[in-house]
Amino acid sequence: MSEKTSTYENLVTELKELALLRSCGAVLGWDEQTNLPPHGAEHRANQLAMISGLSHERGTSSELGEMLNELSDPSTVGGEETVAFANVRDARRAYDRTVKLPKKLVEELTRATTLSQHAWVESRKKKDFSLFQPWLEKIINLKREEADALGSKTGVKYDALIEDYEPGATAAQIQEVFTPLRESLVQLVTAIQASETQTDISILERLYPTAAQKELSVEAASMIGFDFNAGRLDIAAHPFCSGIGPGDCRLTTRYDEHHFPGAFFGTLHEAGHGIYEQGLKDDDFGLATGEACSLGIHESQSRMWENLVGRSRAFWEFFYAKAQQTFPNAIGDVHIDDFYSAVNDVRPSWIRVEADEVTYNLHIMLRFELEQALIGGELDVADIPGVWNEKFTEYFGITPTDDSIGCLQDVHWGAGLIGYFPTYSLGNMYASQFFEKAEEDLGDLNAMFAQGEFMPLKEWLNKNIHKHGRHYYAPELVEIVTGKPLSAEPLLKHLNEKFGAVYGL
Amino acid sequence: MSEKTSTYENLVTELKELALLRSCGAVLGWDEQTNLPPHGAEHRANQLAMISGLSHERGTSSELGEMLNELSDPSTVGGEETVAFANVRDARRAYDRTVKLPKKLVEELTRATTLSQHAWVESRKKKDFSLFQPWLEKIINLKREEADALGSKTGVKYDALIEDYEPGATAAQIQEVFTPLRESLVQLVTAIQASETQTDISILERLYPTAAQKELSVEAASMIGFDFNAGRLDIAAHPFCSGIGPGDCRLTTRYDEHHFPGAFFGTLHEAGHGIYEQGLKDDDFGLATGEACSLGIHESQSRMWENLVGRSRAFWEFFYAKAQQTFPNAIGDVHIDDFYSAVNDVRPSWIRVEADEVTYNLHIMLRFELEQALIGGELDVADIPGVWNEKFTEYFGITPTDDSIGCLQDVHWGAGLIGYFPTYSLGNMYASQFFEKAEEDLGDLNAMFAQGEFMPLKEWLNKNIHKHGRHYYAPELVEIVTGKPLSAEPLLKHLNEKFGAVYGL
Repeated sequence: MSEKTSTYENLVTELKELALLRSCGAVLGWDEQTNLPPHGAEHRANQLAMISGLSHERGTSSELGEMLNELSDPSTVGGEETVAFANVRDARRAYDRTVKLPKKLVEELTRATTLSQHAWVESRKKKDFSLFQPWLEKIINLKREEADALGSKTGVKYDALIEDYEPGATAAQIQEVFTPLRESLVQLVTAIQASETQTDISILERLYPTAAQKELSVEAASMIGFDFNAGRLDIAAHPFCSGIGPGDCRLTTRYDEHHFPGAFFGTLHEAGHGIYEQGLKDDDFGLATGEACSLGIHESQSRMWENLVGRSRAFWEFFYAKAQQTFPNAIGDVHIDDFYSAVNDVRPSWIRVEADEVTYNLHIMLRFELEQALIGGELDVADIPGVWNEKFTEYFGITPTDDSIGCLQDVHWGAGLIGYFPTYSLGNMYASQFFEKAEEDLGDLNAMFAQGEFMPLKEWLNKNIHKHGRHYYAPELVEIVTGKPLSAEPLLKHLNEKFGAVYGL
Repeated sequence: MSEKTSTYENLVTELKELALLRSCGAVLGWDEQTNLPPHGAEHRANQLAMISGLSHERGTSSELGEMLNELSDPSTVGGEETVAFANVRDARRAYDRTVKLPKKLVEELTRATTLSQHAWVESRKKKDFSLFQPWLEKIINLKREEADALGSKTGVKYDALIEDYEPGATAAQIQEVFTPLRESLVQLVTAIQASETQTDISILERLYPTAAQKELSVEAASMIGFDFNAGRLDIAAHPFCSGIGPGDCRLTTRYDEHHFPGAFFGTLHEAGHGIYEQGLKDDDFGLATGEACSLGIHESQSRMWENLVGRSRAFWEFFYAKAQQTFPNAIGDVHIDDFYSAVNDVRPSWIRVEADEVTYNLHIMLRFELEQALIGGELDVADIPGVWNEKFTEYFGITPTDDSIGCLQDVHWGAGLIGYFPTYSLGNMYASQFFEKAEEDLGDLNAMFAQGEFMPLKEWLNKNIHKHGRHYYAPELVEIVTGKPLSAEPLLKHLNEKFGAVYGL
């Protein structure tokens, strides 16, 4: 027993060192996006490749494999209910996935996804899918090989890929919640489009000076509980949140002086990710129990603070006076009702990343269906543009006028990120389901927001979501927290109620 | 032969990877000084310790030792005149120094120098040397042990320590140039103090808004040749320059709205270091021939641009109109003569880092004499305050009123940096000696500066200093470049001429 305990202790040490090494890469990656001088790009690529190579070597070492083998029987770590069991199980999972992939396949994928970026940019710029097509064909083939090498419990290739982003989830389970969601959303969008209520979004395009935007964003992020003593906010072309390690979590955003929502809601979104990272157990850094559960759960935190809190009527009842003081010229004369409807404008649009709370999920479902068919071998890459536009018209009632605002808009597929898209909508659903439960436990959250009280929700999330880390995988976590499996109901209820009111439906 | 060539190629690969790994630590170190959130300090210390541990492991590996052994005969790399020989020689030197140090000694030194920082800060704050004394005693003893373990060609302990900062230099050689320098400087300071010319430094303490200071500093740094496409300028509490790797060199400074010279000349100083880093051969990154020669040579570059260029009359003849446009309220009505004498004010003062071009070197010599005596065993730590004040009075004509502005002012000794101080004055001497030679080759440099032409000097330095890297050690480099060994004459000539004119001597 004492010998086994000691193996677990050695495993913990090794996993923590591995995470520490990877976190050096996280600093290099953050710096690359925020500070790197143009001529430093090649050296930075070399640095990142080195850290990644060292991490891979250590993450696939036979020593690590032996420790995991010694701990393969749950009894060696005190049974299946222990923290140690969860940590060993997850380390085993990560180890097995990595060692299952042939080195040649990994190299080919790295090469293809790196080189394809240039073709994708060109292809999108020239609105010519054929330039990207051969690269995407290569990548899809390699991802199919990857899925075969990894295998999945269900035997479904696509499920092997989802596992990287949403451990324990399957396409069938996701489809089960997506189908009713899609039907209801299409109905809601149709109703909104038929509504006579008009929102005036031009008020959001007045002059909002950058320095004041930053000030207000920082104030809002602090207010909802992001700790700037353990984090920062910087500028990056493509906003992200990087949880570097205990005490150091970095948000980025971008400012457009003539578009208020971008940086403001973007910062709340990233702050939601950041509050999650800051809520993880510092002492468990490097272990499953000290790391985020999944991309979907991560996204549930960002979407909750961005949409369920930041775009709520109650939030602005508390915060609008402050915003008016900050931008007297832009909104000094704008009524809160008009501001509130403007930030909740819903309309079908081509671009996913600019989509509103309602239509966003339709963008995701479209991609989810296509990528399943691609990996399943039922759709040829050459047919993507046609199928994309057909489905888009069905879901949104409008047709992309070219592929740059259609199937070429996202970076994901060309980067080999397949199985990633559904996590965005899973995040929206988890968010509403968690929010509903939090309200059950805490009482009327919106009444609290209207008084500027955000800590009850934040602390509820700390306790019920963050502190678990990845002790449970997402499907199980949702059941533990809410007592129910994942469901589209809470999200639909929220959207119908909120936008029913905004659009007088 | 081909086998030996291949060993050299393997060595090059290994040295480059080692440098790449260390450069990851450089990014972490830069970020620590510029961006780190307060609560991230512990995690950052762990990251830095890991990179430093991995580098140490690799830098002392038996594989590296074997490669160096195989290349120990100069004939294996084409003889002593080759680039390969210089690279092997320097790698051997670094390897031998590292493996000679017992692990226990290294650990004790790391521990003592880390823990002593707190005592030093307290001791300085309370103006009570006795708090720092036991720590410094421990550190001096450990550095003496280190010197014994390393050994030196001369048999002088202190020389073993200088080698870390100024390879190939010895205390005796340095003393030989310092002695006449000190005598002449004391005379010059005395003459300046007796002069009736008064400089009005209060004009430098008017309001210089930070944003405008940054703008002017960036413009000046660009003008003298620092490439901002391959570098940055940020804020740090203790300004430094970090050459991270090819295409990425970062300067830092700090702004005081009521002290113009700090950030401006500080930026020129760091830009001088940066121009050196940017002038190294990118392809030789990680090899001696692609790295800076020594701290003294590095300092010669920063001091040259800061003092010989930036504080020259000719520089301001070109640049003063621009400065007046930038700070119309502060210096719109100030005559260039008054501005020029203000930035060249000379007067004895307590603090080294605030000292002027003339008295600065006296501060260094005092420290150089004391640290030699400490390492040589001729001075007890307990006697430092008394000896410091005695010598200070002799050199400067004033006596420190307490130890916080006397022997407790510098971070170096408590950090174990012994043998470092002389490189500052070596830098001043090298700078003048190189400048004199550049003028011999290029003609009247000041006439060029007055026209805004700084590229001839910059390119001369690129070609004559930077491109050599550490192919030659400093004493040899000076001879190769100037045809003469290191001498105090050019510096004295410069100071006597310049300050003779400023003070009408």
